[in-house]
Amino acid sequence: MELHRREFAALVLGAAAGVSVVGPAGAETDPLPSWNDGLAKGAILKFVRVTTDSASPDFVPPERRIVTFDQDGTLWVEHPMYTQVVYCLDRVPAVVKEKPALAKAEPFKTVLTGDFEKIAKLSLHDLEVILAATLTGMDVDAFNAEAKAWIDSAKDRRWKRPYTELTYQPMQEVLTYFRAKGYKTYIVTGGGQDFVRVYSDRVYGIPREQVIGTAGGVSYGHGKDGKPILTKEPKLLLNDNYAGKPEGIHLMIGRRPRAAFGNSTGDQQMLEYTKGGDGPRLSMLVLHDDAKREYAYGPAQGLPDTKVGTFTQTLYDQAIKNAWIVVSMKTDWKRIFAFEA
Amino acid sequence: MELHRREFAALVLGAAAGVSVVGPAGAETDPLPSWNDGLAKGAILKFVRVTTDSASPDFVPPERRIVTFDQDGTLWVEHPMYTQVVYCLDRVPAVVKEKPALAKAEPFKTVLTGDFEKIAKLSLHDLEVILAATLTGMDVDAFNAEAKAWIDSAKDRRWKRPYTELTYQPMQEVLTYFRAKGYKTYIVTGGGQDFVRVYSDRVYGIPREQVIGTAGGVSYGHGKDGKPILTKEPKLLLNDNYAGKPEGIHLMIGRRPRAAFGNSTGDQQMLEYTKGGDGPRLSMLVLHDDAKREYAYGPAQGLPDTKVGTFTQTLYDQAIKNAWIVVSMKTDWKRIFAFEA
Repeated sequence: MELHRREFAALVLGAAAGVSVVGPAGAETDPLPSWNDGLAKGAILKFVRVTTDSASPDFVPPERRIVTFDQDGTLWVEHPMYTQVVYCLDRVPAVVKEKPALAKAEPFKTVLTGDFEKIAKLSLHDLEVILAATLTGMDVDAFNAEAKAWIDSAKDRRWKRPYTELTYQPMQEVLTYFRAKGYKTYIVTGGGQDFVRVYSDRVYGIPREQVIGTAGGVSYGHGKDGKPILTKEPKLLLNDNYAGKPEGIHLMIGRRPRAAFGNSTGDQQMLEYTKGGDGPRLSMLVLHDDAKREYAYGPAQGLPDTKVGTFTQTLYDQAIKNAWIVVSMKTDWKRIFAFEA
Repeated sequence: MELHRREFAALVLGAAAGVSVVGPAGAETDPLPSWNDGLAKGAILKFVRVTTDSASPDFVPPERRIVTFDQDGTLWVEHPMYTQVVYCLDRVPAVVKEKPALAKAEPFKTVLTGDFEKIAKLSLHDLEVILAATLTGMDVDAFNAEAKAWIDSAKDRRWKRPYTELTYQPMQEVLTYFRAKGYKTYIVTGGGQDFVRVYSDRVYGIPREQVIGTAGGVSYGHGKDGKPILTKEPKLLLNDNYAGKPEGIHLMIGRRPRAAFGNSTGDQQMLEYTKGGDGPRLSMLVLHDDAKREYAYGPAQGLPDTKVGTFTQTLYDQAIKNAWIVVSMKTDWKRIFAFEA
């Protein structure tokens, strides 16, 4: 019976999109109720309608309906630090407990001080050392269990809520809407593929196999009990950022996406590649311009680029020139999080 | 309406599996009509039943229902030469036309003679040179178009039929049956991922993104018209054979399969890894022992191992010891191909 219900829901949503391209706010049939009417919302509704209405000249057969989403800064909060980096820093004490000599070695020594200001100033190389020490060397089942326990309990400092609640409600609606219309939704993240897979189904309704991320190698072998296991190795297979995003999409999907959502220069090539295909294509950039409800950074505020989420002026100019849609969190989103009133 | 029909079909098949674990041959409701009753057919029906019946203690939730299939020798004929190798050899004249100097250089010179006996004796290194020259250097859209044109027209020497008709009908029924019961079917092949993706949907009902194979890197760039393209590079990303199979499964799916089908030592680690998980797991090996209807090679006939499809005595012993199921093409399969009477 589950399939019947889902199918019915899809039909209802489909009909709604067909009649109300920019539907009245709050209407029961509006698939994007957390979006204000405007260019961005209209572009999403129109794109989905013309590519999924079988009478449309731009109809896309179901097997070609691929839509990709960056995660950090696009589907959930990335400030002041990527969630995965917080995980790795939190893991340091356990790693040091296993290898006590590390306690006196940098960058572990700095991390153990717990001084947030000092930790925030660690170099990229320091971070790489910490990532390798905390994300590799264990078998994949052990990693999954550790990461799951952490994500189930850790909380963000500002909102005092689990990180998994810091996803953007408007983007959750976009995910649901695309799926209801037969699109296969993928995460394409610069974050660790194995890490994001731990919670992607629960948080985004995206199964493990539809998460493409920065991926290290694993090596096949046998555990102490003789059972076959895979061990996470400190060997980079796919750096899923910049050109690595379309390259990773080819490796894991083998099709050019019809639509893509990002928020930074790390997404530039994915958005270019998507928009460069034939027929209607949708490339969207989320602009963080809401200092009150979330954070403001990037060129629209005249703020300097920050270490994360580098939405540069050059990227903004490219977006305008190539008819990518820029989503203003401040004006396009009625609310940011599901937990808001 | 398509979904309704499929759902109905799934219910019918499900009911059939529930009541006729080893159903009478030819019964309308038998999901595996090209299989003779026996250990292998019974094992498949029982495995699917206990993992998909919600009242079963071994019930597996739908999102965890992953089944993987080797291609060459498991889903279609691999003798006397892998289809993809034939493709590469056929591509040599076009490559030489673009780079005439190659005509006098080995191994291209030998290939251009068209002497099948000599070509069959080329070394593995020679083959690698030919594969690199014929499978890389072009953009992925051009490769897709070339490979599609070839697979649509090329024919096998023995049966005088398109290679795409040389798939095993009993295995097609297994694919359909697993899918009808909510399993996601994957190809995990030592062959080229991009090559198999060209026809996987049409031949096996498996979409491009569910093909895991030996994969080369691609590089992102812009074509002469300024449009973004991906170019196939002679750089190995994933050697999807032996330990590379479970490693590739982790990269592309991130879950241990519940069931796996193979036919050679290249599949050994995938079958081990699959069988090594908790709960009911199914690992199956197809034994080529039917010289009349297809080919006979491997240890069961006391034949020496051949260059392709190395089903060794060691592998056979491991299968028996670990309760993998060996499928005899001669005795388990009522017919081999759909085109048989």
